[in-house]
Amino acid sequence: MKAVGVIVEYNPFHNGHAFHLQAARQASEADVVIAVMSGNFLQRGEPALVSKWHRTRMALLGGVDIVFELPYRFATQKAETFANGSVSILDAAGCEFLCFGSESGDLTSFLRTIEYLEKNQVSYNVNIKSIMNTGVSYPKALSLSFQQLADSENYLDLSKPNNILGFQYIKAIKHQKSSVRPITVQRKNANYHDEHFTSETIASATSIRKALFSTENGKESIGQFIPESTYQLLKAYFNDYGVFHQWENYWKLLQFRLLQTSPEELRNIYEIEEGLENRFLAAALVSNNFKEFMEKIKTKRYTWTRLQRTCVHLLTNTKKAEMVSDTEKATYLRLLGMTKNGKEYLNKMKSQFSLPLISKLSACKQKDILPDIKASRIYSLAVPNPLKSELLSREYKQPPIYIE
Amino acid sequence: MKAVGVIVEYNPFHNGHAFHLQAARQASEADVVIAVMSGNFLQRGEPALVSKWHRTRMALLGGVDIVFELPYRFATQKAETFANGSVSILDAAGCEFLCFGSESGDLTSFLRTIEYLEKNQVSYNVNIKSIMNTGVSYPKALSLSFQQLADSENYLDLSKPNNILGFQYIKAIKHQKSSVRPITVQRKNANYHDEHFTSETIASATSIRKALFSTENGKESIGQFIPESTYQLLKAYFNDYGVFHQWENYWKLLQFRLLQTSPEELRNIYEIEEGLENRFLAAALVSNNFKEFMEKIKTKRYTWTRLQRTCVHLLTNTKKAEMVSDTEKATYLRLLGMTKNGKEYLNKMKSQFSLPLISKLSACKQKDILPDIKASRIYSLAVPNPLKSELLSREYKQPPIYIE
Repeated sequence: MKAVGVIVEYNPFHNGHAFHLQAARQASEADVVIAVMSGNFLQRGEPALVSKWHRTRMALLGGVDIVFELPYRFATQKAETFANGSVSILDAAGCEFLCFGSESGDLTSFLRTIEYLEKNQVSYNVNIKSIMNTGVSYPKALSLSFQQLADSENYLDLSKPNNILGFQYIKAIKHQKSSVRPITVQRKNANYHDEHFTSETIASATSIRKALFSTENGKESIGQFIPESTYQLLKAYFNDYGVFHQWENYWKLLQFRLLQTSPEELRNIYEIEEGLENRFLAAALVSNNFKEFMEKIKTKRYTWTRLQRTCVHLLTNTKKAEMVSDTEKATYLRLLGMTKNGKEYLNKMKSQFSLPLISKLSACKQKDILPDIKASRIYSLAVPNPLKSELLSREYKQPPIYIE
Repeated sequence: MKAVGVIVEYNPFHNGHAFHLQAARQASEADVVIAVMSGNFLQRGEPALVSKWHRTRMALLGGVDIVFELPYRFATQKAETFANGSVSILDAAGCEFLCFGSESGDLTSFLRTIEYLEKNQVSYNVNIKSIMNTGVSYPKALSLSFQQLADSENYLDLSKPNNILGFQYIKAIKHQKSSVRPITVQRKNANYHDEHFTSETIASATSIRKALFSTENGKESIGQFIPESTYQLLKAYFNDYGVFHQWENYWKLLQFRLLQTSPEELRNIYEIEEGLENRFLAAALVSNNFKEFMEKIKTKRYTWTRLQRTCVHLLTNTKKAEMVSDTEKATYLRLLGMTKNGKEYLNKMKSQFSLPLISKLSACKQKDILPDIKASRIYSLAVPNPLKSELLSREYKQPPIYIE
């Protein structure tokens, strides 16, 4: 059986994602689609709208056959590390292809760009450093540095978020000497960061979340942009748990954590660097909510998402020593769910997987999985009693979701 | 000017306290009454009903002339350490007397008991150890061990909470070779732990708090047991901040702290010993509130108050290395408030104080005071926005309360 991999967050799963899955299947002629999906905290440093279990169900009902969890140690990282972890999982699970959406849609421009940068690596890195010295953020410096070097028409536009991710996926494939073959499809009608609806059926997850949070009948207004299954699952989640998770639900915990911790101790937290601890502490004392706090700590030097990720690590108490470097690979495959078709693939292929398959947490001895367990516990704390306990215990009790 | 010291918590200040102050003044013939008062967290391991500023005002309006804060590092400790810190402050502030309430009311029985125990220290300690080996708590073992040794009629009843405290005050005076002279007055009509009202005007703070929390018009039902000034201050606090602080207000923070922390890291917290960390973690996962949590962690081995104090240290993230041993003395005098009479005493006597006097936190360079600042910040987190910020900043901005 032939598998195509996709790297996703599904926050939430929408029509654009369904289109991407169809295109992936078509372009690869694969029998199964394997998704590696972030768990409860996401790459932009936010809690997912609904838990990974509900998002797994959305994925399976939307066209994915197997969902593996991208471990916390990769999911809440910059694009490079995120890509490395994701690619290593798809590779270990025997994917022949990786299909990603991009603004470019042209694989040769990715390959040309990577080749060009490899040739000019020294001057590229010198450029990045000197641009960062002017006080701008790392991702911004990457794209500016590239613009200074290359004749942009022949190369990738590295200021676009999905181009950046795709670029990192292909780099990861190269560095890991993986046999996975990249395919890219052009994204349809919506930009990653769009905050407003611009098409009739395709909208960015950002604009869908914004609608969910900002209007009283948010769930109604997004109906046209998401499959019916997503709609029902979102509704069920809100009915059951009374919340769509967002940073404000965790603000009091973050503030408490900052106020109880000394600057010295804060410096052990992943991504607390260069005096950030004092900036965070001062802002925590005078902020009434997460938004106020973020506005107080924001500088040109760090992107909003980089700072949000740091806040996630504070919330989960993740130390520098616990995180992976940007060249490390995943060490396990955590199965979150599968369809009948996916199960068949697993039964046939799992003996050839290059990483241990974890489907039952109670039987798992992997120490590496502890950050995922902790992240799920902290994630649950946004849910009111007594359902909090139910969600807290789910991490252990929930078997992989199965859909016939 | 002659000063008599009292050691208090005033949670809240009630008629029994007023009686104690009158008796102290009478017995000592002192010109001023100096109180050393616990800050926002108390010896039984609980947040104070209202902040230390409001309790200071109650004290000054109730007959105290000067209020010093008993630092967190002494206030949230077992009787011995609590007593040592308190006595060292009264001594440093030039008190000639220390007047304490006790069930006994007879100073000679205290002195006789201490003398007896000093003579029989070896067998007393052997007894304590062997009794603790049967699984009972340390305070219980102290009193049982003593009962086994002494002919109880001639000695102090060391099962009574105020006798125990008084006993520790006198021991502290001896060990510190302090010139402070102890006086004891018999407590009137109410026992320390009474949960119900048994007299017409005197009630224990425990029963007053119980009434405040359990009845809708709690403030009305306690009127007869507290001075009008306390009544007005309690009412004002509730109107301003919307809360009487209790453990349940901090439960979510405690649960979060436990769920984000590894057992190894928990073992650095003061009083987390002998596998308590695993017991705490397991209970945090399945408890819906603080009471449920406490019932799950309670064992014969530890008293309820000992476990509550451990929870306070978890909340304030107080490490083993930050706390004092049971023979250490205070290193500063933090002035919380004074009357006109108290001010006169301070002006005349402060040059002779053996410890630095802190009245403005912004001018203070003492590192030892950091735990008090942190405790106040954490205490504020029970107050809803936007008043939380006001209370948070008070620790720095509030000058000593002054009453003409």
